[in-house]
Amino acid sequence: MAQQHTYAVIMAGGIGSRFWPMSRNMFPKQFHDMLGRGQTLIQTTYERFRRFVPAENIYIVTNALYKPLIQDQLPEVPDRQVLYEPFGRNTAPCILYAASRIHKNDPHARIIVSPSDHLILPEEDFQRDVQVALDALEGQSRIMTIGINPSRPDTGYGYIQYLEEAGATYFKVKTFTEKPSLEIAKSFLRSGDFVWNSGIFIFSSDTILRAFEALLPDMYELFEEAKPAYETPDEPNAIEAVYSRCKNISIDYGIMEKANNVFVIRSHFRWSDLGTWKSLYEEMSKDTLGNALSGNILAYNSSNNIVKVTPQAGDKLVVLKGIENLIVVDTGDVLLVCPKDQEQTIRNIVADVRKDRGDQFV
Amino acid sequence: MAQQHTYAVIMAGGIGSRFWPMSRNMFPKQFHDMLGRGQTLIQTTYERFRRFVPAENIYIVTNALYKPLIQDQLPEVPDRQVLYEPFGRNTAPCILYAASRIHKNDPHARIIVSPSDHLILPEEDFQRDVQVALDALEGQSRIMTIGINPSRPDTGYGYIQYLEEAGATYFKVKTFTEKPSLEIAKSFLRSGDFVWNSGIFIFSSDTILRAFEALLPDMYELFEEAKPAYETPDEPNAIEAVYSRCKNISIDYGIMEKANNVFVIRSHFRWSDLGTWKSLYEEMSKDTLGNALSGNILAYNSSNNIVKVTPQAGDKLVVLKGIENLIVVDTGDVLLVCPKDQEQTIRNIVADVRKDRGDQFV
Repeated sequence: MAQQHTYAVIMAGGIGSRFWPMSRNMFPKQFHDMLGRGQTLIQTTYERFRRFVPAENIYIVTNALYKPLIQDQLPEVPDRQVLYEPFGRNTAPCILYAASRIHKNDPHARIIVSPSDHLILPEEDFQRDVQVALDALEGQSRIMTIGINPSRPDTGYGYIQYLEEAGATYFKVKTFTEKPSLEIAKSFLRSGDFVWNSGIFIFSSDTILRAFEALLPDMYELFEEAKPAYETPDEPNAIEAVYSRCKNISIDYGIMEKANNVFVIRSHFRWSDLGTWKSLYEEMSKDTLGNALSGNILAYNSSNNIVKVTPQAGDKLVVLKGIENLIVVDTGDVLLVCPKDQEQTIRNIVADVRKDRGDQFV
Repeated sequence: MAQQHTYAVIMAGGIGSRFWPMSRNMFPKQFHDMLGRGQTLIQTTYERFRRFVPAENIYIVTNALYKPLIQDQLPEVPDRQVLYEPFGRNTAPCILYAASRIHKNDPHARIIVSPSDHLILPEEDFQRDVQVALDALEGQSRIMTIGINPSRPDTGYGYIQYLEEAGATYFKVKTFTEKPSLEIAKSFLRSGDFVWNSGIFIFSSDTILRAFEALLPDMYELFEEAKPAYETPDEPNAIEAVYSRCKNISIDYGIMEKANNVFVIRSHFRWSDLGTWKSLYEEMSKDTLGNALSGNILAYNSSNNIVKVTPQAGDKLVVLKGIENLIVVDTGDVLLVCPKDQEQTIRNIVADVRKDRGDQFV
């Protein structure tokens, strides 16, 4: 099928509170150069799709708060391709909004939905896997997903179980399981027919709309009612009305777990959700003592630290002396110092800081 | 003798590199509110003398670089009472300059010389001890010093040994010893006739000038030559010429160790030279977990830390989570993170930073 019908939808509405104070309500993770590579995560994601999707077919769905960040970081994306949510309602409404909006103009659309803040390398392998998924849509009503070979029994991910089939390039999905216990995650790894859910989905707009109509009919109806307002000055009001009545539900729980036409491709690319400081640390370049340093930093007799000084801190110099295994984040207005092995408490810190100091710093 | 002949000379030329990055070449320790009490150390020292010394008799000797800081922090001190050194040459030239300048206008002057950056409390006890020293000058050519009862065998201080004399309020000094080894410091404490040198001296201008004439005659001559320039537009040039030819030597080594008319009063006040983060930590108020926090700081599950956020860092929020025994200093342009037990390395860090990043941050 012609490339003109291939679309990408980049989901960029998250707030990434595990990376506070770098990731903030008003400046979340996907808009930061988390890996210190001279590009923000959403810019990298955009370029990933720009390799094989026409520019006029790449859409962003994000919170209305982030309009200035989108305009600053992706000035080449026209406003009509940025869909602003009045508030987050998880991935199901986000995907339905984008699919319904795209489908209105192009009923032959094939859509690749992707998070904006993951690491995917090399780009060629990603493109190849996506092409397999797109090809699998040909003449079939299928929802394709991309699964990642699990390297550890991570309890923070969703798992996809598939029906093994010798020689196949993709597999029928049996079950979706969100964030299992460690015991169950271990059994998944042992059984060998589970992959991690990458959050990347490929489907035709027609197929996904039919799935919503069948499985989340109330939500489907809300967006059908809003349809006439798309690309008119009324769109923000119509969408605000939809979202205020829309339930908060993920695409995994609302559609994928229940649909019987879901397939999975085992990815050939390297992937990280960059969901924790630890996973970020693994992907950052490090000095000989294992320090991952991003900013104007001097580390003396210090090892295995992760230090982030954001551009908002200016030309600030950070000096560590005799420090081990710490997370140090300086954003100019906030400094966080926390041991790496306590990173799971950072979300709680954000709540404490809001309680103790109000919204200014969160 | 009338109060009109009583003078104070506050020595404020140090750079306090042990408190880097708070204390900086261009903004040293004495100009900071090190204890978080709403006053800088030099302001507290000035007020200490202002209680019993006429305002027109309180002099400051400092580096010419700190003129803006003096004018900002002590606007009530007229420019004629601030003596600017072109560069530091230790305490002997500093004291000689002040004594010679004061003596020119008032040959009956009695001078109290004091560092600008020490903790002294309560003020009443200090004033009483100084009064005993001033009284001891009456009709006698004496150099009075104030000794501190040593509470530990500190190797960073100077020690004064005195001749014990039952019922005396002050004692003849036998020896001065700068920074002894730990073994020797321990023996000093055991012997019981040693006190710490507080760096506070009380003498008549005549007595100290005669001591310089006898013990540091070259230096004495240099200042005698500069004398006609005092309080004229030529003073800075004349003093620069003197300092460029003047040797770098402390008053202790150049005068006190050699003069035979030195006496010591055992202080009744509490004293700290605030010379290390540890000594500063002891004097700061602490939360229930032993954190000494100065600035907009939240400490969760953290104990025994010392955190300083200077006004230059603005309204910055510092959050510690699960942190123990650290020094964290944020000055807006520099952040230092270092374990408390490694504070003695901070001076080396300053040298390293100068080497690695130049003078901007030191």
